[in-house]
Amino acid sequence: MNLSIDAARLSAELEALGAISEAPSPIVTRVVFSEADVLARTYFKTLCRDAGLDVREDAVGNTFARWHGESPELAAVATGSHIDAIPNAGRFDGTVGVLGGLEAIRALQRGGARPTRSIDLIAFTSEEPTRFGIGCLGSRMMAGVLDPSVGASLRGKDGLSLNEARAAAGFSAPLDAVRMDHGHYAAFVELHIEQGPLLEQRGIPLGVVSAIAAPAGLRLTVEGEGGHAGAVLMPSRHDAFLAAAEIALALENAAKSSGAIDTVATTGVCEVFPGAVNSIPSRVKLEIDVRDIVEARRDAVLGALDETCAEVSARRGVCVRKEVINADAPAECATQVTSALERAAVKHQLEFMRMVSRAYHDSLFMSRIAPTGMLFIPCRGGVSHRPDEYAAPEAIAQGSLVLAETLLELANWV
Amino acid sequence: MNLSIDAARLSAELEALGAISEAPSPIVTRVVFSEADVLARTYFKTLCRDAGLDVREDAVGNTFARWHGESPELAAVATGSHIDAIPNAGRFDGTVGVLGGLEAIRALQRGGARPTRSIDLIAFTSEEPTRFGIGCLGSRMMAGVLDPSVGASLRGKDGLSLNEARAAAGFSAPLDAVRMDHGHYAAFVELHIEQGPLLEQRGIPLGVVSAIAAPAGLRLTVEGEGGHAGAVLMPSRHDAFLAAAEIALALENAAKSSGAIDTVATTGVCEVFPGAVNSIPSRVKLEIDVRDIVEARRDAVLGALDETCAEVSARRGVCVRKEVINADAPAECATQVTSALERAAVKHQLEFMRMVSRAYHDSLFMSRIAPTGMLFIPCRGGVSHRPDEYAAPEAIAQGSLVLAETLLELANWV
Repeated sequence: MNLSIDAARLSAELEALGAISEAPSPIVTRVVFSEADVLARTYFKTLCRDAGLDVREDAVGNTFARWHGESPELAAVATGSHIDAIPNAGRFDGTVGVLGGLEAIRALQRGGARPTRSIDLIAFTSEEPTRFGIGCLGSRMMAGVLDPSVGASLRGKDGLSLNEARAAAGFSAPLDAVRMDHGHYAAFVELHIEQGPLLEQRGIPLGVVSAIAAPAGLRLTVEGEGGHAGAVLMPSRHDAFLAAAEIALALENAAKSSGAIDTVATTGVCEVFPGAVNSIPSRVKLEIDVRDIVEARRDAVLGALDETCAEVSARRGVCVRKEVINADAPAECATQVTSALERAAVKHQLEFMRMVSRAYHDSLFMSRIAPTGMLFIPCRGGVSHRPDEYAAPEAIAQGSLVLAETLLELANWV
Repeated sequence: MNLSIDAARLSAELEALGAISEAPSPIVTRVVFSEADVLARTYFKTLCRDAGLDVREDAVGNTFARWHGESPELAAVATGSHIDAIPNAGRFDGTVGVLGGLEAIRALQRGGARPTRSIDLIAFTSEEPTRFGIGCLGSRMMAGVLDPSVGASLRGKDGLSLNEARAAAGFSAPLDAVRMDHGHYAAFVELHIEQGPLLEQRGIPLGVVSAIAAPAGLRLTVEGEGGHAGAVLMPSRHDAFLAAAEIALALENAAKSSGAIDTVATTGVCEVFPGAVNSIPSRVKLEIDVRDIVEARRDAVLGALDETCAEVSARRGVCVRKEVINADAPAECATQVTSALERAAVKHQLEFMRMVSRAYHDSLFMSRIAPTGMLFIPCRGGVSHRPDEYAAPEAIAQGSLVLAETLLELANWV
């Protein structure tokens, strides 16, 4: 079959989706269930319907666009990613897998393919943890890793619960129905930008992912003692921000001295209360992300963090509360899917390398319920989660092409 | 003359004013030109008019309530303080000087006093720097220390300039008219809670302030490099938050090692951008407050801060920009006013101590244009800028009584 990707159309659609943002171009801010997110969903569903796909949504807002196969009684295969974006992000994270997946299906349609199994294109809800503090909300609930009642009561900064926020966006069915059994899909494969520098550095167009790193997310609340910045003398202070500063620096040190380059730790959120120039900080909220492809090494950093918190609390007379938001296990990709990806790359004479994903993805959770694989394409400078995030149209087209070829093979398994 | 303070009424009025807040009781949040601030102004003006005072407002919202003297052609004497409050503050900072000043005037009226000079009760606009980053906006402009055109274009977090914000609150006359000449007032005296522990610790009801500490306010912007928290390896990072954490800790150390207990330094604001758990901080804004009663010692801390910023910038590959928001000189109180305060205390058999003010006050700027004095009363635990800030009704009444006696003496100078 002659498969061809319409790179120009795909780029134009990515551009149009990128313009649906809470911030001016080129900044993409599209927090789940925001006005921009709802508009982006509408745009995506319109494109899917134009391609003749059958669109449905589940209770948490995961969107499924199905291309019916010749044997609709068989389990479908699926591809997809996410369209939500953290504040001040770029146009390619997630969206390449969603719109690239759509173009892969259109390429198969144009080539006259009649796959045996149906193919679902999925836009997962809230892969980013921005609003509710926990990533991969949609795929996590599909995999049954997040209890629906716990999920329903997650609360964002604006005070709304997930249940309230999804209802406002038009999703009010019970969350219990989101969960899917193992076997619901015959396979899942996700196309994504690498979000790291390796493919670009080596001049290789494709990365076939063998494993996805194990992320952990923590929230620390440091309670000290406020007071007037002019009046409370230095020895009498219990400054929550200075304690938090020490904790963040010790965390950096623990990650750097783990013995492996793959260990990363980030304090991405620091909110100071009351936050006035002439008031000693009485409370600080930190949000921390620790990852490694080896779970034990990641957990050693978490252990070092606990020791630091205890030491700083005692010395500064503050109190540190820890909540573990998530501490997921790493995922292995399924060899039947990665082999299919590799065969497709070879067929189209595209070089690939095997690699691990340090970022997490919806694939981390889809791997719990289906044989799963991921395909990476290069992004400029390895940059992601920034407005200057960039993937070249030809790179995206190559990814979409290999995805199309792979979906066809997977959908014809019997 | 028999002067008596209605302590119960004064406490009730402080309570009523405290309830006008953007946050639930007992938290007082009353940022300048907010709805709560405008309501509080209305409440204050109503009380003043009920007391027969003549109310006027200037272009920046300073409110003047005049009790006309027998010789209205002479320069008036003035008292007052502020009614704005930082986020999460208490009921007594500033308000004791405003409502305590009003009760002092009412006590003089009840006692049948007929002062020679008029007495102005002033509620100064934005003593707190919360909204526009610079404290004592009202008194600063009255003293001509802040250029009206610079003041007009100060911009708050919400993006509104001072000019836009004051217009929305009903103040749209040109700012040039705010400035007062030296000699406009014959004297100024401010009643205030100590915001420190000394009076309470020593069991002394009154503090007569001899000097007001020299505050400096800085804004630092740390620019690093953002990126995905999973993908950018630790050695490749230029994390703006970690650089900011080092700067804040070094500042603490510089203040602690100044050689004097009076040196205090506070990083009260830390805003992290983009502020997502899975994104490396690319930019951080810090707001810093450094004070000392000795200007040179304060400036030595500022010098050490500059060195730290340079060292951290070079080592971490970040860029630190510094803006000096204010670096005011300390103020000496005028002996003719402090002597009058001391005579009044003696007359009412109230013990007093002489002390310095580490917090700054509108008196810092009023001292530029009038002989100025300050009277402190104890507050529980030295606590201020917190919801549990507390001054006892009898302590407030004693302060108001001595203020009344002092105002009468000052107003009868000829």
